[in-house]
Amino acid sequence: MKVLGIDPGMATTGWGLVRQVSPQKYETLRYGCLLTQARVPMSERLQSIAKQLRDIVRTEQPDVAAIEELFFAKNSQTAASVGHARGVLLFVLAELGLPVFEYNPRQVKIALTGFGAADKSQMQRMVQRLLGLKEVPKPDDAADALAIALCHINTRQEQK
Amino acid sequence: MKVLGIDPGMATTGWGLVRQVSPQKYETLRYGCLLTQARVPMSERLQSIAKQLRDIVRTEQPDVAAIEELFFAKNSQTAASVGHARGVLLFVLAELGLPVFEYNPRQVKIALTGFGAADKSQMQRMVQRLLGLKEVPKPDDAADALAIALCHINTRQEQK
Repeated sequence: MKVLGIDPGMATTGWGLVRQVSPQKYETLRYGCLLTQARVPMSERLQSIAKQLRDIVRTEQPDVAAIEELFFAKNSQTAASVGHARGVLLFVLAELGLPVFEYNPRQVKIALTGFGAADKSQMQRMVQRLLGLKEVPKPDDAADALAIALCHINTRQEQK
Repeated sequence: MKVLGIDPGMATTGWGLVRQVSPQKYETLRYGCLLTQARVPMSERLQSIAKQLRDIVRTEQPDVAAIEELFFAKNSQTAASVGHARGVLLFVLAELGLPVFEYNPRQVKIALTGFGAADKSQMQRMVQRLLGLKEVPKPDDAADALAIALCHINTRQEQK
């Protein structure tokens, strides 16, 4: 199973591709960020996010996508901005026919560390360890996206 | 000039098509609402919004679109939900090559009534009067969309 993890945002959308090789073995294929510039009109930023996502899906052919749910404690301006980006991400994934699973931050933390209030550095070290990487993946949004992909793999295993 | 006014929402997106016949004469072509069901998954709701919007644009061939900016005093959950829909609306309009203009609620009120704190019934009566309609257009979201289209026509005239 090849999972595309996505941490949505308007300026920076983290993404990471993880393949499950065996029940306890994961392989990191690629990770990075979709970036858009604040000075560019919103319509163009949304088109850029869609184009970058389509390119990744067409090149890498993941089996499923796992995307973070919005964290509603953020202020409404941030929520609206992330909402625009996340709406387009969900729409493009649906148009491409990719199954999408959604996880909230607490679910991701529990899946990786067993602890719903794990902090950022605990999460990053767990991502590094599970994926057998020499360093913590950078930038943070890409590490978060890899965590969401790992959360999906672990969550689906438990449901079997 | 044929203007598609849009009042974005996840469950209900109002839309209205207005043509300017002469400087003081407007013609209402069509208006209505794009509806999605709350029990349907978010991805499908966004695809439905996109499909309905594409159908209107392809059938009616407006010259421009005018869309309401998000009103950030709403709570963050509402802002995120409307943001998802609005992101997809902007993205689809951009993909279709339609120029998009954005107006906040205060700009729409001033353009129609000269008064930035006009209430809903004042706005609706002004829409009815400007468009020469026998009744106030229903539902409210469609009337709001017609107001946004009229705002664009008036605002562009003043800039000339």
